Amino acid sequence: MTPEENPPAWKSIDELLSAMRAGNRLALARLISKIENRDRDLPEIMKKLYPLTGHARVLGVTGPPGAGKSTLVDRLIAHLRLLKKRVAVVAVDPSSPFSGGAILGDRIRMQSHHLDPGVYIRSLASRGKHGGLSHATKEVVLTLDAAGFDYVLVETAGVGQTELDILKLAQTVVVVLVPESGDSIQVMKAGLMEIADVFAVNKSDRPEADKLVRELLTMVGMADHDEKSWLNPVLKTEAHRDVGVAELLVAVESHQSHLTASGKRDAKLRDFLQEEVGDILTERLNETLKNAFQTASGQAVLEQLVKREIDPYFAAQLIST
Amino acid sequence: MTPEENPPAWKSIDELLSAMRAGNRLALARLISKIENRDRDLPEIMKKLYPLTGHARVLGVTGPPGAGKSTLVDRLIAHLRLLKKRVAVVAVDPSSPFSGGAILGDRIRMQSHHLDPGVYIRSLASRGKHGGLSHATKEVVLTLDAAGFDYVLVETAGVGQTELDILKLAQTVVVVLVPESGDSIQVMKAGLMEIADVFAVNKSDRPEADKLVRELLTMVGMADHDEKSWLNPVLKTEAHRDVGVAELLVAVESHQSHLTASGKRDAKLRDFLQEEVGDILTERLNETLKNAFQTASGQAVLEQLVKREIDPYFAAQLIST
Repeated sequence: MTPEENPPAWKSIDELLSAMRAGNRLALARLISKIENRDRDLPEIMKKLYPLTGHARVLGVTGPPGAGKSTLVDRLIAHLRLLKKRVAVVAVDPSSPFSGGAILGDRIRMQSHHLDPGVYIRSLASRGKHGGLSHATKEVVLTLDAAGFDYVLVETAGVGQTELDILKLAQTVVVVLVPESGDSIQVMKAGLMEIADVFAVNKSDRPEADKLVRELLTMVGMADHDEKSWLNPVLKTEAHRDVGVAELLVAVESHQSHLTASGKRDAKLRDFLQEEVGDILTERLNETLKNAFQTASGQAVLEQLVKREIDPYFAAQLIST
Repeated sequence: MTPEENPPAWKSIDELLSAMRAGNRLALARLISKIENRDRDLPEIMKKLYPLTGHARVLGVTGPPGAGKSTLVDRLIAHLRLLKKRVAVVAVDPSSPFSGGAILGDRIRMQSHHLDPGVYIRSLASRGKHGGLSHATKEVVLTLDAAGFDYVLVETAGVGQTELDILKLAQTVVVVLVPESGDSIQVMKAGLMEIADVFAVNKSDRPEADKLVRELLTMVGMADHDEKSWLNPVLKTEAHRDVGVAELLVAVESHQSHLTASGKRDAKLRDFLQEEVGDILTERLNETLKNAFQTASGQAVLEQLVKREIDPYFAAQLIST
C-alpha cells in the first residue's frame, strides 16, 4: 500500500494547507490529487492558497520526443539544488492513442532525487477532457508556488495545442532541440519563436549541432526586434555529461531579469490570471452541459433536434436559459 | 486572383444556400469560409442548413503520420466515384509548432480529382483556438451533408485530443496503420479500440504486415463483446497499387449497416448534437470572456486579482454576473 492510499485524516482544508506549508509531502500530494480530480473543495482551496503564491519562478521545458528533456530537467534540478533552491517538477503528458503516454524520464529522476526533501516531482496525465489538463496544471503550479518551492519546472512533450496552452503559464520557456531536429526547424519557425525564450541544443556533441545553432541564431536575428527586445539565447548542452547546464541556468536567470525590467512579468501574470478565470468558467459551463440533457426539458430539446425541428443554435439558446 | 477573392455577390443567406444546393462551388466555399471565420451569420446559416442534413455518410480516416492516409483517401474517392457517389473530403490539420502543419496529400488529390464536379476537397487548419477547430469541422461536415454529398471523408493526422474530438463526428472511423506501427500498438491499444471501427493495414506488401494483422485481430478478439457487438475488421491494403480498397469500402458499408441495425446510428447522432450545442455555448462563453476584462469593472476585478486581494474563483463569479 502506498502512503497516498492511507493518508492522515486532515480535518479541514486549513489543516491540510498548514501541513503542506510545513513541508508535509502527503498533504501536498493530497492537494494536487484534489486538483487533478476537480474536487468540489477547489474554490475554498484556491481562496486560501492563492494569496500565498507569487514567489516561484515557473519554467517550461519542451521540445520534440527524444530531445533529452528529462535528462536536462534532471540536471537542472541538480544545479538548482547546489544553489539551495527548492525545486518542483510537473511532467505533463496529454496522452493520445498514438503517443502512448508514458513519461519514462520520471523513473530516472525519481531515483536520483528520491530522498531529497527539496525536490518534488509529479506527473499529470490527461483525463481526456478538453482543456481540463492545462487548467489543472495551472492550479498545480499555483499550489507548488504556495508550498514554497523556489522553482517550478513544467515539462511537456510539446506536440499539440494542449502543450502550448500549458506553456503559456511558464515565465521562461526553454525549447530543447537536438541536431537531428534541424530538418524540421524550417516548418516550425513561427511556432517556435512564439513559445521559446531560450533554446538549448542538446546532445551537442553530435555532428550538425553547430549547423542547428547557426540556423536558430539566424531565426532569432530575423525576428522583429528593437533595443528592448529579448534576443533568445541559443545554448549548447550535453545533459548526460552535465555540459552547458550551468550556462543554461544563467540564460534562464537573465530572461527572468528581462521579464521584470521590461514589465513583461506583470503582463504575463495578467494573461495567466485571465486565462485561469476563463478556465474556471469553462469548466463550470461543461458541468452545466453534462447535466443539461438529462432533465425532462433537456430531453425534449434533444428530441426536437434529432427530428430537425430546431437547429443546434436555437437548441443552445433553449438549453442555456 | 483566385475565384474566392472576387466571388459573386449573393444578396442573402437564402441566395447563398440555394446556389450551394444547386452545386455552385463558390457558394459552398464561401459558406465554409464563413464557418472557418466564425461569421456572425452562422446562427442564421445553420438554422436554414440544418434541416437539409442527415443524408451523408460521414467517415473518419486517421492514423500516424506516414501511414499513407492521403493516398488511401484518394483511392476511396476513386472507388466511390465509380459507384456514382458524390464525395467531399475535409482534411483537418491541428497544426502545432512541432508538426508543421502542411497536408501534403492535398496537392496529389487536387490534381487527380480537380476537374470532377462530384468531388470537393477542403483543408481546415487550426486557428489556435482551443476546441474551435473541432467545432468548425462539425459545422463544415453538416454543410457538406446539406450540399448533397453522399460521402464526407474527414482525414486527420490523429495525434492529439483535437483529432480525437474531430473523429467523434464520424459514423465510421478507419484507422490506417503500417507494418512499422507494430511496436507502438501495445501502448495505444485502449485508445485505438476506442476510436476505430475498421483497421486498414496499409503498405501491406512490406514485411511484418501479417504480424500486425495478427496483433490487431488479437486485440479485437480480446475486447469485451457479445453477439451484438461490432468486431472491427482488419483489412490489408496497398493504396498506391489500389489493392484492398474495394474490400475496405465493403467493411465500411458493413459497419454502416451495423450502425442502423443496432440503433447506434441514432445514439451517435444524439451525442454529436449534444456536443455541437456544447460547442456553441463554449464559443459564446469565449466571446464573453474576450471582452470581460476590457470593461472598467473587468479591469477592476483583474487589478484585485493581480494584488491577490481576491482569488480566481471569486473573480470568475464577479466576471460572470
